[in-house]
Amino acid sequence: MSSDEEQSWRSLLEVSIAKSRKTRGSNYVQISTVEEGEPRCRTVVFRGFQKTPVHHDLFHELDEKPCLFKMCTDKRSKKVAQNAKQSVAEIVWWFPKSSEQYRVRGNLILVGGENEDRALEIARKELWGNISDPSRESFLGQVVPGEAYEKDNSIIPVGGRDDDGKVLVPPDNFLLMLLDPMDVDYLRLTGDQYRQVDSRGPSGWTKQRVNP
Amino acid sequence: MSSDEEQSWRSLLEVSIAKSRKTRGSNYVQISTVEEGEPRCRTVVFRGFQKTPVHHDLFHELDEKPCLFKMCTDKRSKKVAQNAKQSVAEIVWWFPKSSEQYRVRGNLILVGGENEDRALEIARKELWGNISDPSRESFLGQVVPGEAYEKDNSIIPVGGRDDDGKVLVPPDNFLLMLLDPMDVDYLRLTGDQYRQVDSRGPSGWTKQRVNP
Repeated sequence: MSSDEEQSWRSLLEVSIAKSRKTRGSNYVQISTVEEGEPRCRTVVFRGFQKTPVHHDLFHELDEKPCLFKMCTDKRSKKVAQNAKQSVAEIVWWFPKSSEQYRVRGNLILVGGENEDRALEIARKELWGNISDPSRESFLGQVVPGEAYEKDNSIIPVGGRDDDGKVLVPPDNFLLMLLDPMDVDYLRLTGDQYRQVDSRGPSGWTKQRVNP
Repeated sequence: MSSDEEQSWRSLLEVSIAKSRKTRGSNYVQISTVEEGEPRCRTVVFRGFQKTPVHHDLFHELDEKPCLFKMCTDKRSKKVAQNAKQSVAEIVWWFPKSSEQYRVRGNLILVGGENEDRALEIARKELWGNISDPSRESFLGQVVPGEAYEKDNSIIPVGGRDDDGKVLVPPDNFLLMLLDPMDVDYLRLTGDQYRQVDSRGPSGWTKQRVNP
């Protein structure tokens, strides 16, 4: 395979996502962080790629496609504290149907209510409006995730909506979580098996084919 | 739910595995390690629980079931170097059908050909004999995984077998990889949603129900 024929990770991923759209949980990825020198990993929902205005610091496109991975998390979850000490995280996305793996290393950016960046503030509100009713409800409980179980006696607004069905404002603990990729390690284990590592440099992305 | 009704992570996992046995890739898990202070994560195949003799240092049962997670890896892969500096790793196992997640933190133990522990030596050879022909072949190439691509011109014995179809001895780079669990964080997102953290102490496992 000549380097001309190789596709960028972003174009490859576009195809993988399209192929697996109908598979249950195909938008679930694993994200790893570091806590006191030890690895931690959990499953999160990938919620698409975040678009930003062209002149934004986080504007990042490849093959004319946005590259910022969009997720959300709870401010009270451990990965938030972990991120304060080590902002590099790695996402693994395994596609069982096509036996492909993407390992995406990058900076994790957490956007809360106090963010003064207008574009990110809007993005956070949009995501809050777009997640499902049960997802919104999960952010509106009063008990702290991970602490010893206690019954949540607070009244959680159904669907995170008011009496007229309108979505409430996002609570303080709802965070937009973005991963800005620096390296992507792609492995294909079916057909023409290969592994390709894409790295982001000052002048854009470069590709290298490596031994599987 | 009273604590009497709670099941150990090991019994819960037994049920999850049985339920998803027919799902493609249901034995694929993600394992995270640390490299130079940064998190790394990739997908590996879970190959069952490793049994050891009762008096072995690594003998570890819960509810009369073995607890050592069995996998394999290549000595030349990065996680092996990572493991030398930080032996704690974390496995995430997501079951899409039942919406359950297990996060298993523990020590990662790598067993190569020079191991003098008879039980582990046998276990390594057994695993080599039990993996698929293509899996065995993947350990018999001469090019180094992750390095710049070069055509592997070595002759790889088909199926890792000799002319009579007998499995060859495992190559030096074939490692048995065991994870000995210290904590298991179980999350169930369907039906009676709950989260349970099991921790291994000097006198065995304790369970705690925590807020999801």
